[in-house]
Amino acid sequence: MTDSQPTHDLFAQGIRPWAARIRQGSLTFRQTVEYCLQRVAENQSLDAFECLDSERALASAGALDSVRQHGTDLGPLMGLPMGVKDIMVVEGLPTTNGSNADTREITGSEGRVVKQLRQAGAITVGKTKTVEFALGATGVNESRGTPWNPVDRAVHRLPGGSSSGSAVATSAGLVAMALGTDTGGSVRIPACFTGIVGLKTSVGVWPLDGIFSLSPTLDSVGPLCRTVDDAALMHHFMSGETIRYRPDVAGLRLGIVEDLFFDDLDDKVAQDFEAACQLLERHGARRVAVSFPEVHERTALFTAIVPAELINSLKPERFVAIQGGVDPVTAARAAVGLDMTAHAYCSAQHRRKSLVNKACCTFNEVDVWLSPTCPFVPMPVAQLADHATHERALLASRNTQPGNLLEMCGLSLPMHRDGLPTGLQVCMPLNRDAALLSVGQAIESVLASAG
Amino acid sequence: MTDSQPTHDLFAQGIRPWAARIRQGSLTFRQTVEYCLQRVAENQSLDAFECLDSERALASAGALDSVRQHGTDLGPLMGLPMGVKDIMVVEGLPTTNGSNADTREITGSEGRVVKQLRQAGAITVGKTKTVEFALGATGVNESRGTPWNPVDRAVHRLPGGSSSGSAVATSAGLVAMALGTDTGGSVRIPACFTGIVGLKTSVGVWPLDGIFSLSPTLDSVGPLCRTVDDAALMHHFMSGETIRYRPDVAGLRLGIVEDLFFDDLDDKVAQDFEAACQLLERHGARRVAVSFPEVHERTALFTAIVPAELINSLKPERFVAIQGGVDPVTAARAAVGLDMTAHAYCSAQHRRKSLVNKACCTFNEVDVWLSPTCPFVPMPVAQLADHATHERALLASRNTQPGNLLEMCGLSLPMHRDGLPTGLQVCMPLNRDAALLSVGQAIESVLASAG
Repeated sequence: MTDSQPTHDLFAQGIRPWAARIRQGSLTFRQTVEYCLQRVAENQSLDAFECLDSERALASAGALDSVRQHGTDLGPLMGLPMGVKDIMVVEGLPTTNGSNADTREITGSEGRVVKQLRQAGAITVGKTKTVEFALGATGVNESRGTPWNPVDRAVHRLPGGSSSGSAVATSAGLVAMALGTDTGGSVRIPACFTGIVGLKTSVGVWPLDGIFSLSPTLDSVGPLCRTVDDAALMHHFMSGETIRYRPDVAGLRLGIVEDLFFDDLDDKVAQDFEAACQLLERHGARRVAVSFPEVHERTALFTAIVPAELINSLKPERFVAIQGGVDPVTAARAAVGLDMTAHAYCSAQHRRKSLVNKACCTFNEVDVWLSPTCPFVPMPVAQLADHATHERALLASRNTQPGNLLEMCGLSLPMHRDGLPTGLQVCMPLNRDAALLSVGQAIESVLASAG
Repeated sequence: MTDSQPTHDLFAQGIRPWAARIRQGSLTFRQTVEYCLQRVAENQSLDAFECLDSERALASAGALDSVRQHGTDLGPLMGLPMGVKDIMVVEGLPTTNGSNADTREITGSEGRVVKQLRQAGAITVGKTKTVEFALGATGVNESRGTPWNPVDRAVHRLPGGSSSGSAVATSAGLVAMALGTDTGGSVRIPACFTGIVGLKTSVGVWPLDGIFSLSPTLDSVGPLCRTVDDAALMHHFMSGETIRYRPDVAGLRLGIVEDLFFDDLDDKVAQDFEAACQLLERHGARRVAVSFPEVHERTALFTAIVPAELINSLKPERFVAIQGGVDPVTAARAAVGLDMTAHAYCSAQHRRKSLVNKACCTFNEVDVWLSPTCPFVPMPVAQLADHATHERALLASRNTQPGNLLEMCGLSLPMHRDGLPTGLQVCMPLNRDAALLSVGQAIESVLASAG
């Protein structure tokens, strides 16, 4: 090695600083992958991965070093070690979709996100664990195991889901970045619970081929990463959109939706959010109250749309056949889609679309919708045996689902200064991803300034 | 009157020649409306209208004459007498949606199409009859009456539907143009059966507010008129798109889909189509065979999508309550939507979308899809009592539904030289309406040249 052994976390400052070290010659791609694999080995108890691709990752890294040393630089994602949620196909690796049932043919063959990242030189270290069929927000998967949230090494706390393994692997620095998908909060929630950044992109901006289809209406792909700049780098790569950073948050109108989002928060969540808002206000942002009582319809709409679309992906006959072996929470949710009538589904879609229009109009008065990502800090998995805790855990997606149903893009970034992580959710209308990242980066800077 | 009484048909040559006569001073708007009302009175047996708006139409025409004589010209639609399909709201007139049941609140308040046409000076002469809830292609409405197709004054033949009254009123010269809607062929079929031009616009290009929602997936609005230029004039007005006419059909690649469209045609339809194609070929167009066996799925897809969306519009409770009084064919079709499962609906939508993509690809090899609009000439209404004829009549939408399901725009123009009318259907991909009208006008010129 040309450098001293990396001591703890190669990616804590994000992708660009790591990429710069490579260009400075103090680190190679192969060393990076070796480091990642070593970290994975040291953190096996986190159970972040469904499978590893160690040999191929090492070989690719070596080859990329050679390519770069011969004068060809593929850009900042070259040699980037990443995790891929195990509902996305990676050629040469198995796909479980988080299930013991064989549903590979639904997911199809490798899609454009994975393919284009490989072409830019990113290296898949392994497939990360997911909630079964990506339907679940706590991260629990009784079929194939629940990753351990690295924010508490003593107690097994909820990692958040469904992109649980991607969040855990990234948070623990086992990879630089991991891909997730978000249908009701599945990128933002695990990002929040593990103290990292998660970007839920606008539906349709990142391609969805080669990814298990939970809900064609709501599915989106996005990165779990360490900084908003990492998310911006990934989004720029996949979409071609230019993200222009704003110098500060002066004048930013923070839409505070008074309905639902702030009900029954953990004290720590409420305190961290208030502290973050006050800090943003001191930098010139202001809070604007938004009334949107229709967010209370989120469960009814989600339940009328997603289970039916999942049952269509799985096909009813197969679902009935495998149902007994599926994670019980996922199975019960999906089963709703067996008997849902088409007119009830159409009614929900019709209602949803009218609410999308109404939500868009709120952005005449505010720049973003701001809220805690989740109403509570990640609770110990063991406590889910308690009925009240179990019920509360089901609220993990309460604040994130509206963003999916209302066709927004959204970002979760850490807002805690100490203790268990809490997340700040920033949402903007469809296809405003570049603006969202710009605002997100400014907010991140302000929060960091208080560090 | 400054002119001799118009002898028979003011609009036979289309809207622009009529508008020119106005500007030449040989005719006024009020005279035009008087003429229309007189023709309506002389043709009451056609039963084209659900209601008339005579007094207001006359008053508006007089006022518009005055406006124009004082130097303000609103353009070619000023003073244009039109019919409006009775599933579209016109302020001050009742809306039946072709039903004896009261479903006005579904249709809402007056929408932008009607409003913008009024602002351009168009005059609603009356609301035209429609198939109940616009769900039916023959034009039969046992609830509120079936208009008489003016192509045969001796025998009551199918007018085609669901925009039956709009087609009859336009074909008989009772109005210059009438508005229709097309979910499975409801503009193109009656245009074909009554020997006029019908434009099915791309979904979403003309606004749908204030129009009974049969199927949000497939509904579109469009004009029934006398010439392709009329359709172009209307489309330019509603969409702002510029239609550039092409000088001829030289080099035009006529896609002939070999599946379904040409099965079991009436001899006259087959002969008229062959004659039209040969004529186009003599002018430099050429036929290109297209294979698209998936058009056979049209009934399965239509049946899985439209009834459920209609039941959602009506709401299941209301449909069950009114079902006994609904036209029996419409009622039986709609009832399918009561029990359809959401996953079957999603499956059909998913399949449909994949076929849309596949259909788009065929346009790499051809410029248009060309076919007869309907497989048969309009049959006598009385013959529907015969089972075999009834079954055959259900094929009225066989050649038009694919255009809706595959997200195309389409045009029907007369292709017969004598005898009962037959229609030539020209289809192009979504949002190619301007190109479609350009091609359609060139085809119309070629066909007219053989007159």
